[in-house]
Amino acid sequence: MNILFYTPDDKHDIWLPVLRAALPQSTIRLWHEGDNSPADYAIVWKPPAAVLREQHDLKAIFVLGAGVDAMLQLGEALPANVPLIRIDDGGMALQMAQYVSHAVLTYFRWFDVYAKQAQTGEWQQHAPLSSADFGVGIMGLGVLGSRVAKALRALGFPVNAWTRSARSDADLDGVQSYVGEADFSRFLQASRVLVCVLPLTTQTENILNRHTLAQLPRGSYLINIARGAHVVEEDLQELIAEGHIAGATLDVFRQEPLPPTHAFWREPRITITPHISALTLHDEAAVQIAQKIAALENGLAVAGVVDLARGY
Amino acid sequence: MNILFYTPDDKHDIWLPVLRAALPQSTIRLWHEGDNSPADYAIVWKPPAAVLREQHDLKAIFVLGAGVDAMLQLGEALPANVPLIRIDDGGMALQMAQYVSHAVLTYFRWFDVYAKQAQTGEWQQHAPLSSADFGVGIMGLGVLGSRVAKALRALGFPVNAWTRSARSDADLDGVQSYVGEADFSRFLQASRVLVCVLPLTTQTENILNRHTLAQLPRGSYLINIARGAHVVEEDLQELIAEGHIAGATLDVFRQEPLPPTHAFWREPRITITPHISALTLHDEAAVQIAQKIAALENGLAVAGVVDLARGY
Repeated sequence: MNILFYTPDDKHDIWLPVLRAALPQSTIRLWHEGDNSPADYAIVWKPPAAVLREQHDLKAIFVLGAGVDAMLQLGEALPANVPLIRIDDGGMALQMAQYVSHAVLTYFRWFDVYAKQAQTGEWQQHAPLSSADFGVGIMGLGVLGSRVAKALRALGFPVNAWTRSARSDADLDGVQSYVGEADFSRFLQASRVLVCVLPLTTQTENILNRHTLAQLPRGSYLINIARGAHVVEEDLQELIAEGHIAGATLDVFRQEPLPPTHAFWREPRITITPHISALTLHDEAAVQIAQKIAALENGLAVAGVVDLARGY
Repeated sequence: MNILFYTPDDKHDIWLPVLRAALPQSTIRLWHEGDNSPADYAIVWKPPAAVLREQHDLKAIFVLGAGVDAMLQLGEALPANVPLIRIDDGGMALQMAQYVSHAVLTYFRWFDVYAKQAQTGEWQQHAPLSSADFGVGIMGLGVLGSRVAKALRALGFPVNAWTRSARSDADLDGVQSYVGEADFSRFLQASRVLVCVLPLTTQTENILNRHTLAQLPRGSYLINIARGAHVVEEDLQELIAEGHIAGATLDVFRQEPLPPTHAFWREPRITITPHISALTLHDEAAVQIAQKIAALENGLAVAGVVDLARGY
């Protein structure tokens, strides 16, 4: 089996050994400028157009992450009729569940306030909040959002979920469901913490703006672990300055790395992490790709195939 | 029904209305110096000896918290043969599970490191740790410790539990059990994070000392949500200075409030919170006390009765 590999950085040093270990029968080559030789599969992250443009005979393209927006921007350079397959393994979902649990607990249990107090040796208790007033609203309830919802339920939080279409998922025990445009305002009004786990599509770009964020209850919090382009940054900043939004925990930004001069760094009510809510676990991902290739070779269906029309 | 009430601070302003609402048929009086009139029940927190010394006809004494060490120090002033009943409701256990989850996630996911980076606008990812290397060892597995274990399991952590005697609890799914003195060293060696939820007794005082903490793997973390007297503070500080213990999250201290001059405030690897891991939820506790009084009046057994010989 011939496999073509590309990542935009030096990560191939990490990826190639683990992929070769997981796929010992295959020949895995690192793409180089001008490489148009045919391959059976491609495994890529943010490839330039030249990587895939001539690869018409691929059986599948594996994308090394859960978000495929960068792939869809390739447009014509993305070979037609070749399935695009996301890595959205359990390890990634668990990491996101951990990230969101930590951020929600920080706000709910005043840990940010206690950290400030400790800087000046101040011993002052704050009355516990009622979790009934701390509904967490999750936008997007695929593999990732469902795992986040489950973790928050186990920690005692009421969970609302907003999805594009109605679902009947066993995982959704105790989760209040809101569906489509019609429910969006009610969903926002019921959520003291808003968590964005949406895919980035033309429908969801800029979805977190003044109009939508202002519908959250006063003193709400935003957690964004999806894509920077979901948020209109100026709108968020204004709503924080006005006190309508009490704080935000952001892992993704319109420009990454977030430029050192960006105003977000200087806003104490914004917690910034460097796009780490779900780092790819190389070993797990390599095993998953190997399993999916084996399934495809046997004519079986695999999970994670991107619906190009829908955009995720 | 006559009920005697005492707390050492102004908290009766909060307690009396909620208790009277939960026990509308009863007369609840605030104890005052010299008050020896008989009562059916007492509801107290850290009472001086005079509160209970003459109360030989009490049917039960309710303690407004999970830790009863201050009660046991009353010695002779504690009326003989009167059951002492702890409040250890689900709300308190959930709060502790939230507290420990937050602290473990802070270390496991580098959130303390990212917070420091954000102060200087530094964008730097750190490779995810493997949860297999991040076993969390819980000392004490009663109502509180079991709930902590359950939350950590749901967040993907391997959990070890050390208990005084063998248990066969349905709650312990997936928890590695260690029992008694014989297993203590093996338990410590297997735990990257040590969580103390023990009751304070003569057996457990100073249990976290140089000898025991040094048996944790190098780079371990300590979380103490039980009592300050479990920890030999100087030993902990030395082990942190030596780098054997990478960090500690402490909610309880030998002296509370922690004095402003205490060295812990100046150690950046120690996170201090002001004894808030489980604040009493007044409404829930009042309802629980009312239910237990009703059960006792009907000759039924209630949970939370302290074993005075055992000390918890």
